[in-house]
Amino acid sequence: MITCFGETMLRLSPPGALRIAQAQSFDIVFGGAESNVGAALANFGEEVRWVSKMPCNEVADACLRWMRSFGMDVSKVVRGGQRMGVFFLEKGASLRPSKVIYDRKGSAISEARPEDFDWNDILGDTDAFFFTGITPAIGETLPGIVEDALTVCREKGIPVFCDINYRPTLWTPDIAGPTMQKLIRGLHTLVANEEHADLLLGVKSDLAGDGKLCDIAAKLCETYEIGRVVLTLRQSHSSDDNTVAAVMYDSVTGEFVKSREYRVQIVDRVGGGDALSAGLIYCTGLGKSLQETIEFASAANALKHSVHGDVLIASVDDVQRLASSFDGTVRMIR
Amino acid sequence: MITCFGETMLRLSPPGALRIAQAQSFDIVFGGAESNVGAALANFGEEVRWVSKMPCNEVADACLRWMRSFGMDVSKVVRGGQRMGVFFLEKGASLRPSKVIYDRKGSAISEARPEDFDWNDILGDTDAFFFTGITPAIGETLPGIVEDALTVCREKGIPVFCDINYRPTLWTPDIAGPTMQKLIRGLHTLVANEEHADLLLGVKSDLAGDGKLCDIAAKLCETYEIGRVVLTLRQSHSSDDNTVAAVMYDSVTGEFVKSREYRVQIVDRVGGGDALSAGLIYCTGLGKSLQETIEFASAANALKHSVHGDVLIASVDDVQRLASSFDGTVRMIR
Amino acid sequence: MITCFGETMLRLSPPGALRIAQAQSFDIVFGGAESNVGAALANFGEEVRWVSKMPCNEVADACLRWMRSFGMDVSKVVRGGQRMGVFFLEKGASLRPSKVIYDRKGSAISEARPEDFDWNDILGDTDAFFFTGITPAIGETLPGIVEDALTVCREKGIPVFCDINYRPTLWTPDIAGPTMQKLIRGLHTLVANEEHADLLLGVKSDLAGDGKLCDIAAKLCETYEIGRVVLTLRQSHSSDDNTVAAVMYDSVTGEFVKSREYRVQIVDRVGGGDALSAGLIYCTGLGKSLQETIEFASAANALKHSVHGDVLIASVDDVQRLASSFDGTVRMIR
Amino acid sequence: MITCFGETMLRLSPPGALRIAQAQSFDIVFGGAESNVGAALANFGEEVRWVSKMPCNEVADACLRWMRSFGMDVSKVVRGGQRMGVFFLEKGASLRPSKVIYDRKGSAISEARPEDFDWNDILGDTDAFFFTGITPAIGETLPGIVEDALTVCREKGIPVFCDINYRPTLWTPDIAGPTMQKLIRGLHTLVANEEHADLLLGVKSDLAGDGKLCDIAAKLCETYEIGRVVLTLRQSHSSDDNTVAAVMYDSVTGEFVKSREYRVQIVDRVGGGDALSAGLIYCTGLGKSLQETIEFASAANALKHSVHGDVLIASVDDVQRLASSFDGTVRMIR
Amino acid sequence: MITCFGETMLRLSPPGALRIAQAQSFDIVFGGAESNVGAALANFGEEVRWVSKMPCNEVADACLRWMRSFGMDVSKVVRGGQRMGVFFLEKGASLRPSKVIYDRKGSAISEARPEDFDWNDILGDTDAFFFTGITPAIGETLPGIVEDALTVCREKGIPVFCDINYRPTLWTPDIAGPTMQKLIRGLHTLVANEEHADLLLGVKSDLAGDGKLCDIAAKLCETYEIGRVVLTLRQSHSSDDNTVAAVMYDSVTGEFVKSREYRVQIVDRVGGGDALSAGLIYCTGLGKSLQETIEFASAANALKHSVHGDVLIASVDDVQRLASSFDGTVRMIR
Amino acid sequence: MITCFGETMLRLSPPGALRIAQAQSFDIVFGGAESNVGAALANFGEEVRWVSKMPCNEVADACLRWMRSFGMDVSKVVRGGQRMGVFFLEKGASLRPSKVIYDRKGSAISEARPEDFDWNDILGDTDAFFFTGITPAIGETLPGIVEDALTVCREKGIPVFCDINYRPTLWTPDIAGPTMQKLIRGLHTLVANEEHADLLLGVKSDLAGDGKLCDIAAKLCETYEIGRVVLTLRQSHSSDDNTVAAVMYDSVTGEFVKSREYRVQIVDRVGGGDALSAGLIYCTGLGKSLQETIEFASAANALKHSVHGDVLIASVDDVQRLASSFDGTVRMIR
Repeated sequence: MITCFGETMLRLSPPGALRIAQAQSFDIVFGGAESNVGAALANFGEEVRWVSKMPCNEVADACLRWMRSFGMDVSKVVRGGQRMGVFFLEKGASLRPSKVIYDRKGSAISEARPEDFDWNDILGDTDAFFFTGITPAIGETLPGIVEDALTVCREKGIPVFCDINYRPTLWTPDIAGPTMQKLIRGLHTLVANEEHADLLLGVKSDLAGDGKLCDIAAKLCETYEIGRVVLTLRQSHSSDDNTVAAVMYDSVTGEFVKSREYRVQIVDRVGGGDALSAGLIYCTGLGKSLQETIEFASAANALKHSVHGDVLIASVDDVQRLASSFDGTVRMIR
Repeated sequence: MITCFGETMLRLSPPGALRIAQAQSFDIVFGGAESNVGAALANFGEEVRWVSKMPCNEVADACLRWMRSFGMDVSKVVRGGQRMGVFFLEKGASLRPSKVIYDRKGSAISEARPEDFDWNDILGDTDAFFFTGITPAIGETLPGIVEDALTVCREKGIPVFCDINYRPTLWTPDIAGPTMQKLIRGLHTLVANEEHADLLLGVKSDLAGDGKLCDIAAKLCETYEIGRVVLTLRQSHSSDDNTVAAVMYDSVTGEFVKSREYRVQIVDRVGGGDALSAGLIYCTGLGKSLQETIEFASAANALKHSVHGDVLIASVDDVQRLASSFDGTVRMIR
Repeated sequence: MITCFGETMLRLSPPGALRIAQAQSFDIVFGGAESNVGAALANFGEEVRWVSKMPCNEVADACLRWMRSFGMDVSKVVRGGQRMGVFFLEKGASLRPSKVIYDRKGSAISEARPEDFDWNDILGDTDAFFFTGITPAIGETLPGIVEDALTVCREKGIPVFCDINYRPTLWTPDIAGPTMQKLIRGLHTLVANEEHADLLLGVKSDLAGDGKLCDIAAKLCETYEIGRVVLTLRQSHSSDDNTVAAVMYDSVTGEFVKSREYRVQIVDRVGGGDALSAGLIYCTGLGKSLQETIEFASAANALKHSVHGDVLIASVDDVQRLASSFDGTVRMIR
Repeated sequence: MITCFGETMLRLSPPGALRIAQAQSFDIVFGGAESNVGAALANFGEEVRWVSKMPCNEVADACLRWMRSFGMDVSKVVRGGQRMGVFFLEKGASLRPSKVIYDRKGSAISEARPEDFDWNDILGDTDAFFFTGITPAIGETLPGIVEDALTVCREKGIPVFCDINYRPTLWTPDIAGPTMQKLIRGLHTLVANEEHADLLLGVKSDLAGDGKLCDIAAKLCETYEIGRVVLTLRQSHSSDDNTVAAVMYDSVTGEFVKSREYRVQIVDRVGGGDALSAGLIYCTGLGKSLQETIEFASAANALKHSVHGDVLIASVDDVQRLASSFDGTVRMIR
Repeated sequence: MITCFGETMLRLSPPGALRIAQAQSFDIVFGGAESNVGAALANFGEEVRWVSKMPCNEVADACLRWMRSFGMDVSKVVRGGQRMGVFFLEKGASLRPSKVIYDRKGSAISEARPEDFDWNDILGDTDAFFFTGITPAIGETLPGIVEDALTVCREKGIPVFCDINYRPTLWTPDIAGPTMQKLIRGLHTLVANEEHADLLLGVKSDLAGDGKLCDIAAKLCETYEIGRVVLTLRQSHSSDDNTVAAVMYDSVTGEFVKSREYRVQIVDRVGGGDALSAGLIYCTGLGKSLQETIEFASAANALKHSVHGDVLIASVDDVQRLASSFDGTVRMIR
Repeated sequence: MITCFGETMLRLSPPGALRIAQAQSFDIVFGGAESNVGAALANFGEEVRWVSKMPCNEVADACLRWMRSFGMDVSKVVRGGQRMGVFFLEKGASLRPSKVIYDRKGSAISEARPEDFDWNDILGDTDAFFFTGITPAIGETLPGIVEDALTVCREKGIPVFCDINYRPTLWTPDIAGPTMQKLIRGLHTLVANEEHADLLLGVKSDLAGDGKLCDIAAKLCETYEIGRVVLTLRQSHSSDDNTVAAVMYDSVTGEFVKSREYRVQIVDRVGGGDALSAGLIYCTGLGKSLQETIEFASAANALKHSVHGDVLIASVDDVQRLASSFDGTVRMIR
């Protein structure tokens, strides 16, 4: 059982390439980094539990229906509070950037209390725990609640995965930095990027190229006693056209690997990093090699860009086909 | 110039008769009692100003675009605050009732400050002022802000129209009652119904039938020094099928009139009362007779039920055709 | 082969019950009285030819595609002229009437020349000819062109069917009356209603009830040497709810029959009369009894109200099931 | 745990009131009597397992996703076979009947083998078992497989509920009769109607009115050693407008009760009987009185007609509000 | 008259780039290689007959409506059998491949009997006959039925065109090879690709580049007494982005030509090869040069990728504009 | 106040990449070069007035609603005449070009009379006037009406901006040339391209590259006493993929500047030039430098290609972000 903890919001986006000003309807999905990771893992066939706090109304019910459709266990979701967070996503196109407008203040999970979650119970049958840097950012009580969960993980020897996922609209580096530095100590695997490593975790490198990335990853492992670090790479040529890749470092073996680069035409770029985390956790559970792991995780990330919504809807076969045998050709399957 | 003051929300509703649990998209309109009245009046050809407070984001921009499309002046809308209120509308069908879920807490207007509104400026060229009982209910500062506006109206001799519009999810009778009793004193016209007259305004009658309605209206006028009172009547046979009508009393002449009853098949019942208020204000401005006024207002109400969204999209001709010559037959116009 | 001659337009209508002011898209069908009759007949399995004039552009191509989809022969449609006629249909609901806005001026067919149509060729294999009172109304040359066609029908002994279909936006009674009086002389069957019989054809009756209808029909037959007359009956309780029926008179036998009355909930009321004409022509071709004919034709009319678009999409079985065995119960077929 | 066993198909229906001939897209849901009952029960908060056989492809995966979204357990669904059954539903309107076209031949479940289902395992934690007369009709092996399940139910003392659900397109009375007579022996509750009781089960009555229904129900109980019998009543005034009700008889107490009659405007009539069965099983589990049971079940049936798709999407509160306090008035909930 | 013989299926595809798991509706078109070729030829202005066997239901009726809309003659389509084949198409995007799931087993045409088709009658007025390698693959009787047709073609001197169109999900090379080798003997023109020439027809070449293609084409002509061979070329850079071209060899003149290469952004890639065949047959009928023929056919193929559905909706002008004057610039036409 | 004068049409376009032949609905926007410029300027925060003539019907009402939604003043629009112009836009894709079919003959504005417009009143508070070469082309009276407006502009010293916008379907060079040569005399700024400068204005250059463009612009300024000239540049690699840029010349300073080149993936290319004109007028009003002006205008043009409809929906910030800091990277804004 893989347990994911965090906020999920109702996502409202104009159809196609319309701007918010032009919309007469909004397409809806539900999205949050942790449930995105959980849903992708459930699509890979894993047993997954999503933990959060949700209000008692039909919109939150619809969100739980959505979570269950992937096969995720939602029996530990606490009901209560005032509202669900909402975010508006205006998909960009060409030279027009995508825009996200958050309306998440006062959401049930952001006002959760420590006693809402009995982590010994929740994590009783858990094999891996996942959270992102968004969770401690959404409310005052949240860093403590995450800390509670991590304490139980430590006691039970549950490996913890975290994506640093820094959101400047939620908190500033001077608060986010110390908080995250505390929470990531002892992680099994940390996902970050070069910019956030510097900004929040105080780690940078004078080297260049891949050496630089290896140096940053190694320093992160050393400083924060982390087992493995993944650094993600993205170039945004336009709103429709990105290049993605990732590197990974293992502090035990000192091994450093880099994935294939994928040039992606974008259907929906939200949740790419979450698909990567899902791929990472999936391969880790199977004891795959570092190279196989980063290739699978990067392929999951690349593939996510071709899927509408926040969640990677893909089977292990779908990802593996890309990860293991991509030769620059994409053939129809029939 | 007719000035309307209140909150307008983003309305999200599943297409057709779908339940929220089934929706993959939400149809969007913007709705609020006061802007609904204003938009209907603008559709009747009146000059209208809508006053509110709205956050600085693209969703609020879209709402202003919507207001302007009717020809309403929005130059006095204050920009600032955190969010727009949202409500979810699940349209009922047959024996399944419609459901509204409000998510309006923390909206910009609900946290407005008295100094946000310079009523002497806003009301400078105003010929009539409209608000509903929702406005003072949405935030702690709002009763005072409405009181400020009413003071200026009194000073300038601007007639004030108010729909009592009691919403039990926003406040309780013990708070709403005294607040509204104070705010409705001296109104030109009050719109209410029998239930709210009793619950909030302490007025009821032992008579039966139309006599009862006349008695309640007369007592309301007397108790609160109101010029005219309209009482609305509705029977909800099913979610698709209602009967609507209204009565009106003039305290100066003592005249009491009743409109035709309309049996309506419902496209969208939200905003029926707002269409009635718009009809009322329109006819008052033209000095129509009491009977003509209530017939036009009731026809506007009936017609609203056939129009999607919160706003009556209809010309004066559309309403007049129904109000003055309805013979139980509805013929295609070509 | 049944040949129908007249104009068909692009019909643009807001989705569902939206008003034109609210639409972001228009649903499209193609509609015209004569092609509606032809398409319904083709759906009944008849061989049908539609004759008109259409411009050379992709919109007209799409219209021909539509005609062919029913199996109609369009090989005699003349290509040329400037534009296709367009009409906007705003479907009414409840007490709000449907509205049609015509934009047909300057259409190819309305500016056709007599030499565009070689009626000896067109009608060579024709067993019945159908036109409506719209065709001579749309342009100055059209009465003459219809007259040309009727002359050839007379020469070849082709029975002619006509629906008087008076449209006051196209012409006035003082022009329409004499024109139609000339064109309907010698018809096999005329479809009209009480109002138009009086207004255009100068025929009315002092009797009451069915006797009145019989009297009018008989006078029409006598005055204009017509074989049979059908008078249609409609009550429009609301935009969603009508009652339809029809009577029929045979001048040879003097037989007068009345169809069952159908109360219909309306999906789309445009083309009801055209479905009736199609039913009429279909049964006439099979030599059905007068009672069977009017029942089938009325059932076709009633059924049309449940079908989107101008055309009755229904098989003979669909109509016959209603015409011959309706007991007030409509059961799912599976 | 309530276990439901049967076939579920992909349902393809034209949007709104379009005919199949007009559709450019089909709305999709998944539907089958047994999963409809299960999903409604899951919506009522029950633990439900759905058992069937489904092919290994993405369409079947989507169906399982759908089942899980309600919270149903699908871990016992066997994967294999060639295809999923499909049915086309053309929703009727007014006097035009709804049409269902089945394309279910060769579906995975219709070709299942007895060894596909280990009933001792499947029913290990089951408190109630539900099937309909469709299941034994869909394939040669199915009567035997149902018999296997019933044998285990008898051994474990699991109460069995069955809706006779006779489908003449699947089998004829001479085969269906003996098969069903065998399978319904010893049921806890049988759902049937007067017509099928006569046609398949050889039971009718010379009495009139409610006495007749009571007589039929009592004879069914006696003949087939059934605990309770529900007879459903439906009048189809039009495709949009039905009246539904039901009666129930308890063979132990001899009590006979009749539900309120509901006149329903129809959004989607498929699955009404399944909602009734779900209500029945729900109330039986709670030990409700016979009158409460039939009222709740009938309210569930009535409410289903207002919900798109085959499944009643409603909470216990939604149903109870109608069942216990309906006064002919349906008020908006806000 | 060009006659095309084969199966056409109902194609169900999620809107836009949605995966099957996400769809709430399926867009529908009808598609089959032979009717795709026929429809494209009809769009070019040719007289075309499509021959197949279709069940008696409204879905098949809708398919015939579709065929007629292009102007194709469907009077020789046999009605009967159990069902229409269905296929699900999930359009790929970027690195995610398109997926086709066939559900065609038991279709009416796949179970056709030789006596269903009177080829002397069907081919009486035929100038060219087209089939693909799919037709003999779909059922046991089909190779014989195709053989019957080819025999009549030989007798009447009708030129035959065939696209080898090998589908590994329908049959294996050891069955497909000998069957196709027999059926292609004496063809006017064969369309194939390098892979299938080797796999099914035992023809390959040791040469490189265009020489290799010429060698294969020449050997195919020689071995199977074929007049002309077209080999298609495709590179699939991604699901959205392909390069297409084709070569053509004439066994009489020994001429070998190659078309321009087109880089295409893909709206819908299904039916590209069918558009090529249509172009080929069109130009052959006009006696165009080999170079003109392959350019027109390749332009038709390229253009098809920009059109939704299986069929090339384009006029001869549309194709010719691209084929004869493409300079790397695509200008708006107004 | 910026005043724009010209025709606006109802634009009907098939959804997505469908061809007209495939559409069952048309997406609608309203578009015309002058109102497109006005709406973009209103989106930039400018006060804008749109002047035209529109018929009295609900479609024209909807157009005015649309204009008001941007905040444009429509109080000077004359109501009357017969119809609104319509145009059909079939969006191209890949190698398939976009097609526009105009149906604008007989539109209200094309038949306007000089006395419809009181230019002294209309231009009373105007700071800049904009028209295009389409306006004088649409009707016989229009060159005179434009001349009237320009005379008043001259009298009041209102700077005039004009886009030459030559449409060969409306008039021929021998009429357009002399007309435009007269109307552009004394302009503040003219927008044209190399082709039209030669074809209509008789100006070309023997130089090459940018020198050629500078030469043409300078000659245009000199010949027609124009202050500034902008020449637009476009390469159409495919229907989805263009490169756009522009140059600008100031006759007073002799300064010649060139904008950045933008490669754009196209959502909707209609109105790109109008966005450029809007950017130009906006920057001119602010007294921006020539380089800043052409960069802003070109960025507006580029950005327009990513927005559905004829109008650039973008804030000044949206444009400025691209104009001033584009580094080949487009990042999501959150």
